[in-house]
Amino acid sequence: MEYSVEHISSAVETAIKSLSFPTTAPRLFEPVRYTLESGGKRLRPVLLLAVYAALSRKDIDDAMKQALGIEIFHNFTLLHDDVMDNADIRRGRPTVHRRWNQNAAILSGDAMLTYASMLMGCCPADKLAAVITCFNDTAMGVYEGQQLDMEFERRNDVTVGEYLEMIKLKTSVLLAGACSIGAIMADAPDDIRSKLYEYGLALGIAFQLQDDWLDTYGDPAIFGKEIGGDIVNRKKTWLLITALNESDGDLADILREDLSDHELVAQVRRVYDRLNLRERCSALAEEYSQKAIKALESVEMDADARNFFTELAKQASTRAH
Amino acid sequence: MEYSVEHISSAVETAIKSLSFPTTAPRLFEPVRYTLESGGKRLRPVLLLAVYAALSRKDIDDAMKQALGIEIFHNFTLLHDDVMDNADIRRGRPTVHRRWNQNAAILSGDAMLTYASMLMGCCPADKLAAVITCFNDTAMGVYEGQQLDMEFERRNDVTVGEYLEMIKLKTSVLLAGACSIGAIMADAPDDIRSKLYEYGLALGIAFQLQDDWLDTYGDPAIFGKEIGGDIVNRKKTWLLITALNESDGDLADILREDLSDHELVAQVRRVYDRLNLRERCSALAEEYSQKAIKALESVEMDADARNFFTELAKQASTRAH
Repeated sequence: MEYSVEHISSAVETAIKSLSFPTTAPRLFEPVRYTLESGGKRLRPVLLLAVYAALSRKDIDDAMKQALGIEIFHNFTLLHDDVMDNADIRRGRPTVHRRWNQNAAILSGDAMLTYASMLMGCCPADKLAAVITCFNDTAMGVYEGQQLDMEFERRNDVTVGEYLEMIKLKTSVLLAGACSIGAIMADAPDDIRSKLYEYGLALGIAFQLQDDWLDTYGDPAIFGKEIGGDIVNRKKTWLLITALNESDGDLADILREDLSDHELVAQVRRVYDRLNLRERCSALAEEYSQKAIKALESVEMDADARNFFTELAKQASTRAH
Repeated sequence: MEYSVEHISSAVETAIKSLSFPTTAPRLFEPVRYTLESGGKRLRPVLLLAVYAALSRKDIDDAMKQALGIEIFHNFTLLHDDVMDNADIRRGRPTVHRRWNQNAAILSGDAMLTYASMLMGCCPADKLAAVITCFNDTAMGVYEGQQLDMEFERRNDVTVGEYLEMIKLKTSVLLAGACSIGAIMADAPDDIRSKLYEYGLALGIAFQLQDDWLDTYGDPAIFGKEIGGDIVNRKKTWLLITALNESDGDLADILREDLSDHELVAQVRRVYDRLNLRERCSALAEEYSQKAIKALESVEMDADARNFFTELAKQASTRAH
């Protein structure tokens, strides 16, 4: 087994291409195929398969259906989120509700969720209850995270603790669920499964904090998106929430002013700089990366496997895109 | 066991009231509770429980979680359908996307689908695979039906055969799935399960044809809705499709004219009358009721139970509301 994101994600890519869908109403699945074929990091299925291989020492094919299930679930959430956010572009292409229409996005999204559940259920009978329970609990956590995220948009008193809880639900729970399902498929005992779950949770928070950081401090040439979009959209990131809590109303005043995007970003960044948020955000992301690595300390695995999980955790808080 | 729709549906009503939802993001479940508490016939859970009781001779409580699951799934489809149809009113109250907003309707609908799946999974391990498979296949059928329904709205050459296939998927498959899950929970052998599935399919088509009939020929005082709504909306019902296929373009001309609602309904009804559609639609619905009753002939059950299923099938094609 070759432990690299590239190796595993290329196996996932091949499996996605060979997926077959029900044929009674083929147009229902056109947006599904479109969404699945527009790429992305495939982080969740890669994680599920890497955990499976590390703990079972078996070929990843035996957990591929579940890996596809988690990827399809993830893409379903993006599809419905794009409708809710009225987003035009996803991964460089028109979103489904733009390319088709809103009804297609809603209905094809529903079909993706059920299809993900079908793939999850393709597993040995003795693992079915655990896999399905973990999958459903994970899904519910993600919706709760999305609900809190929408509620936070309308609030100005969100605490950093609340924010971390929200991104745990919206982002980390799915990475943790992917790890957990990989562990279930590998017949790992409960305590090992918990450690992997913990790894996924910490990894997800490190990822999200680095995402927040990159949107303000990334190198636009490498990041691939314009810098400052979160600030312009007044998005409640760790940076903005921390600054709102610590800046005695200065920042709230700036956000209310009618500034050009460029001037707004510059002024908000000055507040961030005064509070040393660039370094503090990096340090916090790094802390979660270390937490992730530590969670696996007592879990026995090959050096190759451990190296994979360690590198992935480090990368989460240091990546430039 | 008392076999009556009223008795079983009141048990369902009680169980719905005592449902508890996850508490991390309580607002996510406000629309869910609102939707579930606005009533409806509870036909699907009643059917599931009646099948379970008839085949197992046990108390219905043992299949209540699955009955709630099917009802919640049904309500999830209504919630998302209302967004897609941009409907204002459902069961006499504002739809969720009107009362809250569209995002709440999408996200709470997603949570309902996952919640339904969770309830389905609350069953003995030896039945889990069959229950989950039947539930997911049923769900996929319903989406396919909805997809075809949306495609038919934009087509003028829909055949009666295509229409019957579409309502089989959109409506009947869920009644059939409810019967099938009741049979699985009762440990019924596969051939019995197939008979019950057949019953549900035929019952659903009888119901839908009578729905089409009532919208044009019902007694407004009993039907509870204005008569002729389907005609005004040019809805592709059995009546309209049959008339379009048999009226040599007369009807298509009428539909294109700029008539008042009242005049449109009167003219379309004249075409229907000429083709004898009032009687033919009733006869077809009745045929499906008989098909449903026949499907159960070889299935052993108490006289009370048989009477229940027979009456329900007859009522499907004779009900006045």
